[in-house]
Amino acid sequence: MTEGFLPFPPAATAGQALAEVDTPALLLDLDAFERNLARMQAAADAAGVHLRPHAKAHKCPAVALAQMARGAVGVCCQKASEALPFLLAGVRDVHVSNELASPLKARALAQWARQARLSVCVDDAAQVDTLAEATREAGSSLDVLVEIDIGQGRCGVADAAAVQRLLQRLAPHPQLSFAGLQAYQGGLQHLRSRAERREQALRAAARAGEVVTALENAGVRCATVTGGGTGSVEWDLESGVYTELQPGSYAFMDRDYADNEAGALRFEHALFVATRVMSTAAGTHAVVDAGLKSLTLECGLPVLWPADGALAYTQANDEHGLVAGAPLPALGSLLRLVPGHCDPTFNLHDEIVAFRGERVEAVWPVAARGLSR
Amino acid sequence: MTEGFLPFPPAATAGQALAEVDTPALLLDLDAFERNLARMQAAADAAGVHLRPHAKAHKCPAVALAQMARGAVGVCCQKASEALPFLLAGVRDVHVSNELASPLKARALAQWARQARLSVCVDDAAQVDTLAEATREAGSSLDVLVEIDIGQGRCGVADAAAVQRLLQRLAPHPQLSFAGLQAYQGGLQHLRSRAERREQALRAAARAGEVVTALENAGVRCATVTGGGTGSVEWDLESGVYTELQPGSYAFMDRDYADNEAGALRFEHALFVATRVMSTAAGTHAVVDAGLKSLTLECGLPVLWPADGALAYTQANDEHGLVAGAPLPALGSLLRLVPGHCDPTFNLHDEIVAFRGERVEAVWPVAARGLSR
Repeated sequence: MTEGFLPFPPAATAGQALAEVDTPALLLDLDAFERNLARMQAAADAAGVHLRPHAKAHKCPAVALAQMARGAVGVCCQKASEALPFLLAGVRDVHVSNELASPLKARALAQWARQARLSVCVDDAAQVDTLAEATREAGSSLDVLVEIDIGQGRCGVADAAAVQRLLQRLAPHPQLSFAGLQAYQGGLQHLRSRAERREQALRAAARAGEVVTALENAGVRCATVTGGGTGSVEWDLESGVYTELQPGSYAFMDRDYADNEAGALRFEHALFVATRVMSTAAGTHAVVDAGLKSLTLECGLPVLWPADGALAYTQANDEHGLVAGAPLPALGSLLRLVPGHCDPTFNLHDEIVAFRGERVEAVWPVAARGLSR
Repeated sequence: MTEGFLPFPPAATAGQALAEVDTPALLLDLDAFERNLARMQAAADAAGVHLRPHAKAHKCPAVALAQMARGAVGVCCQKASEALPFLLAGVRDVHVSNELASPLKARALAQWARQARLSVCVDDAAQVDTLAEATREAGSSLDVLVEIDIGQGRCGVADAAAVQRLLQRLAPHPQLSFAGLQAYQGGLQHLRSRAERREQALRAAARAGEVVTALENAGVRCATVTGGGTGSVEWDLESGVYTELQPGSYAFMDRDYADNEAGALRFEHALFVATRVMSTAAGTHAVVDAGLKSLTLECGLPVLWPADGALAYTQANDEHGLVAGAPLPALGSLLRLVPGHCDPTFNLHDEIVAFRGERVEAVWPVAARGLSR
């Protein structure tokens, strides 16, 4: 009676049969994942554009290292705190693709910039002042990208004149280097029609191109123009505007992206949530053990995989999901779900169970999970 | 260049001014929280009903200990893995208010049961067999509650006859004690009209009462009848059916529960998400740094607090929120949001910043965050 409480066993260990994974668990099909990485890298290489995949999607250093091993130039993070696990894992080129909401975050970034290449976005003079003070104190340098709004209507300045006002604010601070522009239009990524997505992607890229040209005409060179996403990548690549792309979801493909009408550049479902049937008492449905705390619903329900149409995940409660159809799966059955939206789903899990065929190959920590500051 | 990467600073430390908290952060107003705990405990005491608050709501041992210090008999957890942080914090009476989806979970529970009183639900004979084997191996005892469906249509058996079939399955296993029934109707908790909620709560309790009576007439005593929630608690208490109640949200009050028409037993907003304005470049709205990775939307958008109607949180992206209204808050402004749904929001955060007045009093780990197995 004195031995203490034993730890709860891990969901999976390397070498284990996939069928033995405890649930709910996040699964990554390594074969599909690696094909996705290779396809995107080949497309970027063919276009002569750098690939800087977005780590906000997965928050997992092992994923980032797999992307960089295939040619990615570094990663994007969306929050300052999110960058640290990637730096600690050896990534030495991190772009924080966002404005920082507090001086504390700028000071952390400036400290880390003593040992790595870091860049960050601004869209206000006050942000420049905060970065200047933080880097002066740390004795470090940061690359600064001005974010421009190319149609999303969220962050970013409107035009080249506004960019130039920020360049004047940057000028007295040699430790802050103007590196170029960030131009991202998230709103078009999930337009279902390929024609509509193409039109809006090219319009967004054209808007970015106009700002680049206006700056060039004023003698300002944008070494980097970064943006783009999984839903627009084919046109981002052909636009000639972007020097680097930031897609994230392509490596995993959630249900929402798969609902887009695809073109020649196709990606496969590599990410799943494993779940088990925990109750069949009702008779009309099976209850599974993955609900809102194991997958997120803002982009709709998950789908069962393989998608043979016999069964559907019809409702999510916090810790339960309902599965309907015929024949209903038996108590204890292991099912695989394709999540509706990969990014916030990764953010619920501490580990990724990476498998190949029917065997667990590795368990990867989602080390940046919850790092939202 | 060799000092390593400094850790990212904590969001808050005890003694700090609340205005200095880094964002996004989960805030708990201790004065309001303690009033909520006192009100619920007093109502349960007056009715002679045990209070066993649900820890799935907050996943925080410090919250559970505060509830038990005021008279709660223990906690509920919804998953086996969720129980461990509460056991490690000294809670010695944990009810897992759910069926277990795998033998691994039963084995963990059976191990822990050597040092604590643990109970768990069943609604299928196979679950009894799994618990019997796990406890036999561990040399431990578990209390078993049969879950009955009183209208939710999720887990649980239908009637007293089905309960008795499970009692026959339990009979050969002296280490599994039948402790009574679990009867929970989650579906009625958010009916807005008080009259409608009352009617359905009393109907659900009556259904539970019928099963209890039928079992009594067959010579089977239900020592415990556990269920109920924040939205139905006043009628759960007066029903005379439940021996213990499992509410969770009353301690915090999210926007969804506050939208219910309240009766005499009222609870205050104690839980907030602190966020800062990170961009005002658009001019038409402010962008704040709390989005879908800091609060969840399945029960609707958060509201700004205090709710003076001047500003509204109108849209959540993964890491951004849009705030509209007039006058727009300035860059860097600290805002407080009441989340739409407290349970999954807690599950996104590793810490609760507990404050009193304008001062941070403590930072509590959300130790069971992410423990969904």
